[in-house]
Amino acid sequence: MIIIKIGGGIHINIKGIATDLSKYLKQVKEPIVIVHGANAYRDILADQLGKKRQVVTSISGYTSVLSDDEIIDLQMMVYAGLRNKRIVEIFQRNGLNAIGLSGLDGQVIQAKRNKGIRIQDGDKKKLVRDLSGKPIAINKNLMDFLLENDYIPVLTVPIIDEEKIAVNSENDDIVGILQKEYRAELVIHFLEAPGLLEESSDPTSLIEFCSIPELIRLEKEAQGRIKRKLLAIGGLIKNGVNQVILADGRSEQPLKDALRGIGTVIGGNT
Amino acid sequence: MIIIKIGGGIHINIKGIATDLSKYLKQVKEPIVIVHGANAYRDILADQLGKKRQVVTSISGYTSVLSDDEIIDLQMMVYAGLRNKRIVEIFQRNGLNAIGLSGLDGQVIQAKRNKGIRIQDGDKKKLVRDLSGKPIAINKNLMDFLLENDYIPVLTVPIIDEEKIAVNSENDDIVGILQKEYRAELVIHFLEAPGLLEESSDPTSLIEFCSIPELIRLEKEAQGRIKRKLLAIGGLIKNGVNQVILADGRSEQPLKDALRGIGTVIGGNT
Repeated sequence: MIIIKIGGGIHINIKGIATDLSKYLKQVKEPIVIVHGANAYRDILADQLGKKRQVVTSISGYTSVLSDDEIIDLQMMVYAGLRNKRIVEIFQRNGLNAIGLSGLDGQVIQAKRNKGIRIQDGDKKKLVRDLSGKPIAINKNLMDFLLENDYIPVLTVPIIDEEKIAVNSENDDIVGILQKEYRAELVIHFLEAPGLLEESSDPTSLIEFCSIPELIRLEKEAQGRIKRKLLAIGGLIKNGVNQVILADGRSEQPLKDALRGIGTVIGGNT
Repeated sequence: MIIIKIGGGIHINIKGIATDLSKYLKQVKEPIVIVHGANAYRDILADQLGKKRQVVTSISGYTSVLSDDEIIDLQMMVYAGLRNKRIVEIFQRNGLNAIGLSGLDGQVIQAKRNKGIRIQDGDKKKLVRDLSGKPIAINKNLMDFLLENDYIPVLTVPIIDEEKIAVNSENDDIVGILQKEYRAELVIHFLEAPGLLEESSDPTSLIEFCSIPELIRLEKEAQGRIKRKLLAIGGLIKNGVNQVILADGRSEQPLKDALRGIGTVIGGNT
């Protein structure tokens, strides 16, 4: 199995990914699962609608967008709606039988609701609870049927918590639960960057190969979202993925390039 | 099978429908398919985003919203996104294993693209082609798996045309193709009205029972959307449905009331 995570930027070349994947699947029969974001689209719509999002930084240094009902509405519109269906359409146009699902649909991605985020509020520590959770299980009956019948599940947030409430989740964690369940050999992350950069502002500082000790070092030094991403990649490797490739989703042939190892290759022979 | 069509109004009591359906399915094991609209939600978002929709009236007297790329974007956001996922969430909270799909997903509802709408343009007749189509087939392999495994498919637009392009469609026609394929015994339409009214502005003019000849008479006299709805109901009856019930989706127990025959009952013993 290959799990392909498509980042939330507007410059990711979905058509290129679909064209490459279509060619690849003519040569190799392999289950494919897509997990995608839509951050940039959400921010555009939030701006158009004048909705402000509340960002908090936890005491342990991770930043999160607080998910209230309005954020979940936006996610439904943009992640599960616009972006999901446009990806499905582009895949279908390239002969790939994609089926778009949020985690709610058939309870395909089940979450444990987060207890809350501990933040520093002036002198005090405060617990903020929002509509977010960690994926802990998938609906294997549904996923197995889809994969055995050559569908390509195109998965996104929101996912469903233990009380069947729609909650936000990190896409990296969704990739994690899928990899844990299916032991994918390869996970590809398409970004709007050439791969993992030593200096995030310098696109020429690409790390071409990254060993496990190197990954741990980078994670310790990193801050915010990139810290969490590196932690998630470490988790994938711990759970037996052979290789994680962080590749540029903006190139003309994003998947072909990624499969050639253009980008950052983590694990495997590194 | 019961096909439940949920209209696009904001006052439809989804929670009430879900509660009733949950109780019903504890007593009767029966496949259920939901088809829903979201017109009111689309209009609200279109207003917020300042998007104007173009309405045309065909020479034969039917009015349509012209579907361009922006309308399809809106449909993905509001029909396949916000409304579909909120319905799925409410169903899941009531113990119903709903799975929301647009017609694109796994090609579940396949269309033949419309050739165009003939309109009167001053002295001339003009053909206007947009992103719309008529449903002509369903993905029975996918639908059968879902129904046999007690999922409740929650279906909506857009659907997928012969070139795998996302197109708009009438929900009544989606109900039609489902009924043709599955020979549902009962089709329930939830409206923001007590049922079919003799005078659309007078809620006390409810037609409680409507025979087939009466339906034909009403269709001939009607205009616009209601004309098309009556034509679609006539098609369902021609294709062997036992009963069509038009019921008030705003009541406290919408499904319980509908199953009691509160609303307009067409066909069956009428």
